[in-house]
Amino acid sequence: MKILGFAGSLRAGSYNKKALRVALQGAKEAGAEIEEIDLRELNIPLFDADVEEKDGLPKSVKIFKKKIEEVDALLIASPEYNNSMSGVLKNVIDWASRKGEEGTKVFYNKPAAIITASPGRFGGLKSAIAFRPVARTLGMQLMNEEVQVANAGEVFDEDKIVNERVEGQLKDLGKALVDWTIRLKKPQNQPTS
Amino acid sequence: MKILGFAGSLRAGSYNKKALRVALQGAKEAGAEIEEIDLRELNIPLFDADVEEKDGLPKSVKIFKKKIEEVDALLIASPEYNNSMSGVLKNVIDWASRKGEEGTKVFYNKPAAIITASPGRFGGLKSAIAFRPVARTLGMQLMNEEVQVANAGEVFDEDKIVNERVEGQLKDLGKALVDWTIRLKKPQNQPTS
Repeated sequence: MKILGFAGSLRAGSYNKKALRVALQGAKEAGAEIEEIDLRELNIPLFDADVEEKDGLPKSVKIFKKKIEEVDALLIASPEYNNSMSGVLKNVIDWASRKGEEGTKVFYNKPAAIITASPGRFGGLKSAIAFRPVARTLGMQLMNEEVQVANAGEVFDEDKIVNERVEGQLKDLGKALVDWTIRLKKPQNQPTS
Repeated sequence: MKILGFAGSLRAGSYNKKALRVALQGAKEAGAEIEEIDLRELNIPLFDADVEEKDGLPKSVKIFKKKIEEVDALLIASPEYNNSMSGVLKNVIDWASRKGEEGTKVFYNKPAAIITASPGRFGGLKSAIAFRPVARTLGMQLMNEEVQVANAGEVFDEDKIVNERVEGQLKDLGKALVDWTIRLKKPQNQPTS
């Protein structure tokens, strides 16, 4: 089983990237192959339907879609900006939800879990709240379980997680995603659209 | 009174841009000076806190913030992508909500109205639903009244609006925004943060 993780924040020291890596580690301990993709390195442009019509999907978007197609499940970490998910995360989703010449719905029926992290007391919760209806529309099989990493400045010391409770929560989420993905294999009576 | 309009879609033929212009025209008929800003021309990058820390706000973001500061109210048109506002709109808001060296909260206490348009039956309603909590967090004074332009492919013939009912709704929204802005001038007991 392969699990792909990405964070909706570009900055190198992002708490969401750090939290993501801990959850991915949990998935690895549960037997999954893990991979992280950095949206900054992908350098995806802002969604523009005129560009799409003229040139098709940008290469960076194709790479992102292909990565998603190749894996069994997704771990998504999202910062909360202004009471919602980041524009960066929404933008990459907007691009990846376009069919393009490939004609695929990459998110459809894909098991997924969401993590949020912030320096504040609520750990970016509103980002997850904003994300759930988007995930539903895309057809993701988003786990009910999620983790909010609050006071993230104290949870991490540089790249290392120093709060054992939160470390456990994040790893458990990664493990739960592995279980969730197994449970969702070969569904009966799956709708076709 | 000056009213600035912008749409959360980059494509030239955007229904949201078309709807925005009709509403702006209504505001003009009610006595406002109007201006439209095209986010594609601004060419705002994806939000990146590392870039912000190193170089401050990008020039395009400064231009956008300055425009907002100079006007009395905002008309915002947002497409619905994947059950929410566009990543393009959220991204420009994420940037503009950063203080930068200017130290201003450009959206705070700014009267605003939202329009959504889509080729579908619900006219991009979910975009407005996703936008309201963001506007509240930013401190925008977002009017309760909003317009959804459904079946937008039939409402516009090229750039011209051919549905009189919707034209009236959009112009009335622009006029209502002028009234709303007048009512909100010089508020009593305004909180300072």
